[in-house]
Amino acid sequence: MASNPANNNIPDIVIGRLPVYLRALNRLTQEGEEVTSSHELGRRLGISSAQIRKDLSHFGGFGKQGTGYQIAYLEEKLRQVLQVDREWKVALIGAGDLGNAIGNYRGFTDRGFHIACIFDADEEKIGATVGGLTVQPMAEIESTIRERGIQVAMIAVPAEHAQAVTETLVDAGIKAILNYAPINLDVSKRDDVHVQYIDPVLHLQRMTYYLKG
Amino acid sequence: MASNPANNNIPDIVIGRLPVYLRALNRLTQEGEEVTSSHELGRRLGISSAQIRKDLSHFGGFGKQGTGYQIAYLEEKLRQVLQVDREWKVALIGAGDLGNAIGNYRGFTDRGFHIACIFDADEEKIGATVGGLTVQPMAEIESTIRERGIQVAMIAVPAEHAQAVTETLVDAGIKAILNYAPINLDVSKRDDVHVQYIDPVLHLQRMTYYLKG
Repeated sequence: MASNPANNNIPDIVIGRLPVYLRALNRLTQEGEEVTSSHELGRRLGISSAQIRKDLSHFGGFGKQGTGYQIAYLEEKLRQVLQVDREWKVALIGAGDLGNAIGNYRGFTDRGFHIACIFDADEEKIGATVGGLTVQPMAEIESTIRERGIQVAMIAVPAEHAQAVTETLVDAGIKAILNYAPINLDVSKRDDVHVQYIDPVLHLQRMTYYLKG
Repeated sequence: MASNPANNNIPDIVIGRLPVYLRALNRLTQEGEEVTSSHELGRRLGISSAQIRKDLSHFGGFGKQGTGYQIAYLEEKLRQVLQVDREWKVALIGAGDLGNAIGNYRGFTDRGFHIACIFDADEEKIGATVGGLTVQPMAEIESTIRERGIQVAMIAVPAEHAQAVTETLVDAGIKAILNYAPINLDVSKRDDVHVQYIDPVLHLQRMTYYLKG
């Protein structure tokens, strides 16, 4: 088990499945289970058990053939691999309807993330409270992020402002951006910055392709 | 160009990229552009131009070598392929903070989707107004969906209720579900039902893997 496995050249698609496994294990724990198997996980996730065993084998494997996985142990190991055995402070940019929903969402904290500050450009929103935090002006993004050593940010601003916000964030030291604005961000100049996207319409359109009108 | 291309055995990963292309083309149109190229699209999206040309070639290709793509034409063709050249009525289940944010989001309408009804189990929420719609009781899900011929739903209820809601939706005739609840849904008995997921924590955890603690 590498504690900082980023140099291991494990395919990103494998890394992308680990949080899904961790979420399923959390659910099993909530249901009172203590042991599971690649078959049980695969059945729940619609992924083959062979794929699950192969994915986990990149990290040394976590179970013995025939005896299954100790859920608590596997959860802890996956948290270590994903580095969510600690709490990451997150900067949230945008305090509109979406920023409010994100700021009030209670599902981040027990999965490794804590929204630590929130910013908006709208004078009327600055000073308001969202999820217990006071909305700060955009001009304070860089100093706040630097002072607090924040590496993770979420963008919930209109599409036309998202690229400018991104550049401010990257200049301030942000290394991971979850972008809710419906636009692709250009971070091609910075190969140490990771971007992921949330756009519900992309998912809906991917499904309507298959529907009978 | 097939108008109902679902039988063409095009890989789902290709279908998944088409909404991304369409979104980038929308943006180019908003910027006043009329013509683009696979190189320009690729640069904006961080996808190789060869990949873009190959993806589009599944549908017959849309440009001549060297002259680029007419943006308006390509947008229209992609809308047809994805079947978002019409408006899909969407049922929204859950009227909490997240349901409110989804119900008030203005980005669905011009991309093929119209939230047509919203449901919640909480007596205190029933009768309230979200995005101009009156929140209906869960008991009305099936009749409303059947009467209005709705095929698309979004789930924004707590994880522990999501599977039961899913079964109600599928029984009522829903064929496409976008699930915001942080849990995998089992629709394995129905191979005509499509599910996509939105869970911001999965994206965040995928990125923290690469960060230096």
